[in-house]
Amino acid sequence: MVDLRDGVERVCRAAKEASAPMAHADASRKNAALAAMAKGLRERAEWLKAENRLDMEAARTKGISAAMLDRLLLTDERIRHMADGIEEVIALPDPVGEVTKMWRRPNGLWVGRMRIPLGVIGIIYESRPNVTADAAALCIKSGNAVVLRGGSEAIRSNTAIARILRDALSGGGLPADAVSIIEQTDREAIDCMLAAEAFIDLIIPRGGEGLIRSVVEKSRIPVIKHYKGVCHIYVDEDVDLPQAVSVCVNAKVQRPGVCNAMETLLVHEKAAPAFLPAVAAELVKNGVELRGCPWTVRLVPQAKPASDEDWGTEYLDLILAVKVVASMEEAMEHIRRYGSLHTEAILTTDHARAMRFVREVDSSLVLVNASTRFNDGFQLGLGAEIGISTTKIHAFGPMGLEELTTTKFIAFGDGQVRQ
Amino acid sequence: MVDLRDGVERVCRAAKEASAPMAHADASRKNAALAAMAKGLRERAEWLKAENRLDMEAARTKGISAAMLDRLLLTDERIRHMADGIEEVIALPDPVGEVTKMWRRPNGLWVGRMRIPLGVIGIIYESRPNVTADAAALCIKSGNAVVLRGGSEAIRSNTAIARILRDALSGGGLPADAVSIIEQTDREAIDCMLAAEAFIDLIIPRGGEGLIRSVVEKSRIPVIKHYKGVCHIYVDEDVDLPQAVSVCVNAKVQRPGVCNAMETLLVHEKAAPAFLPAVAAELVKNGVELRGCPWTVRLVPQAKPASDEDWGTEYLDLILAVKVVASMEEAMEHIRRYGSLHTEAILTTDHARAMRFVREVDSSLVLVNASTRFNDGFQLGLGAEIGISTTKIHAFGPMGLEELTTTKFIAFGDGQVRQ
Repeated sequence: MVDLRDGVERVCRAAKEASAPMAHADASRKNAALAAMAKGLRERAEWLKAENRLDMEAARTKGISAAMLDRLLLTDERIRHMADGIEEVIALPDPVGEVTKMWRRPNGLWVGRMRIPLGVIGIIYESRPNVTADAAALCIKSGNAVVLRGGSEAIRSNTAIARILRDALSGGGLPADAVSIIEQTDREAIDCMLAAEAFIDLIIPRGGEGLIRSVVEKSRIPVIKHYKGVCHIYVDEDVDLPQAVSVCVNAKVQRPGVCNAMETLLVHEKAAPAFLPAVAAELVKNGVELRGCPWTVRLVPQAKPASDEDWGTEYLDLILAVKVVASMEEAMEHIRRYGSLHTEAILTTDHARAMRFVREVDSSLVLVNASTRFNDGFQLGLGAEIGISTTKIHAFGPMGLEELTTTKFIAFGDGQVRQ
Repeated sequence: MVDLRDGVERVCRAAKEASAPMAHADASRKNAALAAMAKGLRERAEWLKAENRLDMEAARTKGISAAMLDRLLLTDERIRHMADGIEEVIALPDPVGEVTKMWRRPNGLWVGRMRIPLGVIGIIYESRPNVTADAAALCIKSGNAVVLRGGSEAIRSNTAIARILRDALSGGGLPADAVSIIEQTDREAIDCMLAAEAFIDLIIPRGGEGLIRSVVEKSRIPVIKHYKGVCHIYVDEDVDLPQAVSVCVNAKVQRPGVCNAMETLLVHEKAAPAFLPAVAAELVKNGVELRGCPWTVRLVPQAKPASDEDWGTEYLDLILAVKVVASMEEAMEHIRRYGSLHTEAILTTDHARAMRFVREVDSSLVLVNASTRFNDGFQLGLGAEIGISTTKIHAFGPMGLEELTTTKFIAFGDGQVRQ
């Protein structure tokens, strides 16, 4: 255990030391290293696949599920995707050094806020090896160092990817340790990492709710997290029916397994008689199972009765809970009680209600007349994201490059002293 | 212990429930409640002093130090100060609801970021009762609810102040529980509060390093903290000597017991022969004890030799560590090693070095040619602050009203769906 702790601490300390030169590296140098990373991944694809095969064989021996095996697999296409992802990050503006505001004080002192990197980001993730490249690229572009701790079943794949990224950093005159990987696969290695508050500034866990809860419980370092996405759409009494059908079908069906898919549909009682049968027909045609409140079941013969557990459930599947409400207030109260602060939408033609819903609903993204599926860094125009935060400290919603920075105050004077 | 936990949880839950109406309260309503708070403090000053006397008597019986007794004392002047402080908060702009940016996506979707409150702020503080009013006013103005846990020795004073603030809230149609106070004086009550992650969004500890370290260790809720301020001034080789003397004397002497006072002076070897005797004469005249490196001791007969412990020490007193350095790089390296990320300044006439120091030094405020004493919300033009953060997550530097908020994404569409 002492050896393990020393080993993990050595990796974290090396990342911290690398974070100072990274913080001052120009965008051109960081972009050159990122380009070399993408090139390295493409050129060494055969080696990556060979390393990945060793992980795959070990995982098969352990009897890991087919779904997990699929997540673990690296194909030529997936390696190309990783490289493309890094090139997309090159194209994003460098947030570091931006002076976001500057103002003059009555005593002549100029005061401003300048964007700086956070320092060292710790990423704890599960089986997908692509996270190694995706997360590292965002951390490097934003001037941070990163400590990566992937799933034990992907250790050879992750280590191989990290090797390529580290070679690209050294080749470009940047410290290789800016991408550091914890190779100890013991579970206790995570505990050691979560105690390394002297070296790591922020922890981002990526994976299932179980992983995230255990990280939050143990960490002495701030954690940015996202437990689940129970996204609601409220269909108002005044609504464009065909548009509402199209948005609801998109929010549920376009990719049901992701966190920004709709899980519960709330419908105003005045809209329900016309809207519910119309939307139900389209949803059922797309294979969606409906679970409704008694009123819904009366209007929609295809719907099964919902149980209490259906409200607030993240199905991540072609299942939808449906409830008729007497007012927008009732819808907002339902969201407050069962929502996950992730994504909520109102579909309405009424301006005042649209504006009130946007103001009062407490979610990382609140939409009017658009699909919940837009809660995504690229879709909102922020570029690649390292995750979506449903906690309000530091970042709320998709976390892109800007959210991997903070601001320091700067001041230019000519001898000012305090009276 | 179960009763204690239930009691604390009840208070935190009530604050959480109050946070929803607070989040939607207009600035005019919040300002009216703040005005009533200030008025209440002024009008009920006699009662406050009577309650405070009971705390003072109990503290004297316990044999508490004279310095702590002085901090605990409420006088007419101090009560007026609390009321004035609340009125200053009324004058600050309400950050809630501000749309900080808005842009249009290629598909016609408008996307923006809107400022919203964090929710419930937990403040854990020591003996000064004025924190009760100061912190509550900032939380209320920024649309948050607050859970207050002051020192046990100030329990009657804090409870009396909170009563006045709560009356003002109810009188103004806002929930009294937006200012909630934990009246259990057991130390375990803090542990229960730090475990109430379902109800509290952010913890701000205010007090000595011991209090803060114990809060960070135990908290499952994010903590914004500030251990200490070891502030450095670097006097460059090219410098306006009289200006540098005036700034250094101000940074050390104007109020030595606070976190933004200078603790270590670094002087370029080319400036040292002229500058050090001049600044030493002024500092010694003001009662400052100098502890210097061997070079300093040779140049300044009044200086004692510094020991290794002097570098990185927060004296909070009329003591100054002084070191001669061979270059700005050596000064920056010293700051990296011994600094506390609080406040650092360079005094120079050279533009390139000024800009490099500002860019590369990692502190919540980096100044050129001005006193470190400006690291303060009012001095920087942000208004009242709830504390100064030296961690980079969420807030770095003085934490004013804006830092008590976050932004959510909002989007206005006309039927957009994801392809």
